[in-house]
Amino acid sequence: MSYSVDINCDMGESFGAYVIGRDEEILDYVTSANIACGFHAGDPATMRTTVKLAIEKGVGIGVHPGLQDLVGFGRRNMNISPKEAYELVVYQIGSLSAFVKAEGGQLQHVKPHGALFNMAAKDAALSEAIAEAVYNVDPELILFGLSGSELVKAGEKIGLKTANEVFSDRTYQNDGSLTSRLESNALITDSNEAIQQVVRMVKENQVNTVQGQDISIQANTICIHGDGIHALDFAKNISSTLAESGIQVKKIKDIL
Amino acid sequence: MSYSVDINCDMGESFGAYVIGRDEEILDYVTSANIACGFHAGDPATMRTTVKLAIEKGVGIGVHPGLQDLVGFGRRNMNISPKEAYELVVYQIGSLSAFVKAEGGQLQHVKPHGALFNMAAKDAALSEAIAEAVYNVDPELILFGLSGSELVKAGEKIGLKTANEVFSDRTYQNDGSLTSRLESNALITDSNEAIQQVVRMVKENQVNTVQGQDISIQANTICIHGDGIHALDFAKNISSTLAESGIQVKKIKDIL
Amino acid sequence: MSYSVDINCDMGESFGAYVIGRDEEILDYVTSANIACGFHAGDPATMRTTVKLAIEKGVGIGVHPGLQDLVGFGRRNMNISPKEAYELVVYQIGSLSAFVKAEGGQLQHVKPHGALFNMAAKDAALSEAIAEAVYNVDPELILFGLSGSELVKAGEKIGLKTANEVFSDRTYQNDGSLTSRLESNALITDSNEAIQQVVRMVKENQVNTVQGQDISIQANTICIHGDGIHALDFAKNISSTLAESGIQVKKIKDIL
Amino acid sequence: MSYSVDINCDMGESFGAYVIGRDEEILDYVTSANIACGFHAGDPATMRTTVKLAIEKGVGIGVHPGLQDLVGFGRRNMNISPKEAYELVVYQIGSLSAFVKAEGGQLQHVKPHGALFNMAAKDAALSEAIAEAVYNVDPELILFGLSGSELVKAGEKIGLKTANEVFSDRTYQNDGSLTSRLESNALITDSNEAIQQVVRMVKENQVNTVQGQDISIQANTICIHGDGIHALDFAKNISSTLAESGIQVKKIKDIL
Repeated sequence: MSYSVDINCDMGESFGAYVIGRDEEILDYVTSANIACGFHAGDPATMRTTVKLAIEKGVGIGVHPGLQDLVGFGRRNMNISPKEAYELVVYQIGSLSAFVKAEGGQLQHVKPHGALFNMAAKDAALSEAIAEAVYNVDPELILFGLSGSELVKAGEKIGLKTANEVFSDRTYQNDGSLTSRLESNALITDSNEAIQQVVRMVKENQVNTVQGQDISIQANTICIHGDGIHALDFAKNISSTLAESGIQVKKIKDIL
Repeated sequence: MSYSVDINCDMGESFGAYVIGRDEEILDYVTSANIACGFHAGDPATMRTTVKLAIEKGVGIGVHPGLQDLVGFGRRNMNISPKEAYELVVYQIGSLSAFVKAEGGQLQHVKPHGALFNMAAKDAALSEAIAEAVYNVDPELILFGLSGSELVKAGEKIGLKTANEVFSDRTYQNDGSLTSRLESNALITDSNEAIQQVVRMVKENQVNTVQGQDISIQANTICIHGDGIHALDFAKNISSTLAESGIQVKKIKDIL
Repeated sequence: MSYSVDINCDMGESFGAYVIGRDEEILDYVTSANIACGFHAGDPATMRTTVKLAIEKGVGIGVHPGLQDLVGFGRRNMNISPKEAYELVVYQIGSLSAFVKAEGGQLQHVKPHGALFNMAAKDAALSEAIAEAVYNVDPELILFGLSGSELVKAGEKIGLKTANEVFSDRTYQNDGSLTSRLESNALITDSNEAIQQVVRMVKENQVNTVQGQDISIQANTICIHGDGIHALDFAKNISSTLAESGIQVKKIKDIL
Repeated sequence: MSYSVDINCDMGESFGAYVIGRDEEILDYVTSANIACGFHAGDPATMRTTVKLAIEKGVGIGVHPGLQDLVGFGRRNMNISPKEAYELVVYQIGSLSAFVKAEGGQLQHVKPHGALFNMAAKDAALSEAIAEAVYNVDPELILFGLSGSELVKAGEKIGLKTANEVFSDRTYQNDGSLTSRLESNALITDSNEAIQQVVRMVKENQVNTVQGQDISIQANTICIHGDGIHALDFAKNISSTLAESGIQVKKIKDIL
């Protein structure tokens, strides 16, 4: 039995004079990059640089569309209509795809960012609008969504390839949702525990919830974080531990 | 001898609750539409609507990239580097092209907006960066520039098709530049005079300057304005008068 | 028995090249102006012009702070924290107050805009943050809120003068809230009916709900709209009808 | 003979999730803080925090108005009119002053940022508009400008107190202007040399230019930088060396 999984990370979040993330280094340990497009983070110069780096390092390039909320980093829910979601996703896919084309690369996937990702996970209408946006611009793009979420369902329904995303450092509820960050047990702070959770999700399609129950979960891609002091260490660690556990880490395009 | 010319107009300049222009009506009288991309005007919803309308009416679709200056409508010169110009042009071509793709249309051209257009006309380095951006994203796109300007030269140099743009309602200097709007004789306020200037530019490749001299000028496309009280009347008028003068009005793609 | 009421209107919503509203004319028929501060609408030039006009016409000047959502005109709910609400209200009060000071006028009131107004109406924590922001910058400012709302309560609690706002053209529910715009009977489209509703609210402190019940309601100020085709006619009409009905229309500062 | 000088530093330049500068630490070594107001950097939360810190540490609080160019950090010249300069300065003074008022502090000064500062230095009309904006909002505010610049002259002309600013780490030309950053000898990289230049400017009102000539220069306030690896060390160093050289470092309000 052979196993494989993709590791994705948000990238290209710097903006003008402002720097976030250690993109160049993190790119050595991930297989897919979600690149911000200027709505919640990122700017044209950063997008260009990040696309170039991802191409050089053979990392799958993804659009990371977010809400138009730069000061809130796209993390604050906004009451947008499905029509508005469709339009901002089309726009952002386009903006990044031009840099990819100019640099001679190829787009691989789309993963909504922050509040848009979270709202879509539970909102079928919003998810359908996002999936339709992706499909209409390029039906070959892979849509990333929270494992088992409305977004993944909407992607499958319209005919897109989809990637079920899991989190290494977040705990799960019995219904398959993530434990809210408002709860004290939302995060797994021990690196090894986090990685072992991922290994089990990939090999057994199971995760143990905070309620103590095993539930099934699909794990095509793992989200890791690119900022914070330990981001780079964790990236190295998870990358090598997965390999040692007999799990091939490769870009989602080569898995699906 | 047969003559033909394109008529282009800036479009899609509405933004959120703010409306500028009578795009739907003007589209009946022009052959190419320059659509704003959210930097100096426009937003994703407006871009989508305008692209749809242009496709329905068979009008050539152009990207209208501008400086990131919404409150100044992209009309204030900014000291951007060629690198920054390259990046903002790539970004904006991408953003519009995704809507065009989603609606099943095809991009025809790129025409920089306002201050970016004016700065590029005289700045070879800026023009080369813009031309390179267009070429790298799609070498089939036609680049619009002020007739005889650095932008047209840069487009030709890199291997793009270019369109020399003339203005019906602006007067010219002996060096082929437009009379500054700060001068009292910058504008031709009489409609017929404006149209006759165009007829002559198209048929004879000549224009009479404010200094009273005839100079040669290339006229592939005429810029008209989509806002203002008389915009629609003027659009109808120039469109029919050109036809009566034996000049075929058709989209630039079918001329070059 | 003498009656008096204030009429307020949103103003200064133009932005750069974009024009909304017929502020100069509407100012002749209202007693208080809510001036946008650049977050959801407005820009420094518009703020200055609108402040000048309001001073010239003796209209009470109010800050109209909104969410930072220009493309959505501040009408889309955003999940902001009370802390963020506090900060954006302080900021916007400051920005307008400098123009008022530079023009030799005096600030009268603060009325949150759109989604911020609506969210605050039902959210005590958000309302308390807004009231605290107003109080901390200037405890003499009058806080406008939906009649009977959490915002009015929070204002009273902290020690501000408050104005209960009613709508002439909106219908009411038994609990005193406005009928949602999603309902077909949300709007009163007949001008006379709208004005008679106001007259009764001012004189009898009663309004008849869509469920057919009379409920009590405080009416210190009436909100009218400054854009739309009939805005100016309605403004004239309500202003004169109130006068004829024995209700003095004067700015809120001279009522409370 | 007693000497005194102010040390000022740009602050509050963080924006949302983006952090720039080590404001809290730097505040221990400067006497005046120039706080960004959201146009080129800063946001309401950062403004509030920075104002609080400055008050706690007894540092003079200044408005740091910039061009509306967040992605360019306000460093790119823009062709704004004096009217536009007036308006954006009024707006930004207001926004910061509300936080100062809410926190119980007092505004001390205004120092334009980046490109606005540089353009004003040489442009009398722009400088007059800026000085008028400051004066009209509060004639007690002190206006900072490059030593001997048009901005200082405009401030004096309208009746404002002004502070001539010098740079420790920049070299000077015979005409009193700073050597362009495009020149290889624009910066003084040796800390001690930089500090000795300042000591001489304060005590002797002289600086040695790159052309080798001594010219006279007024030095009321020294600009130091708050970001970069060595910012904090340099701040400590200059602060203590000035004290040892018999120069009292105190806020500009206590000097003029």
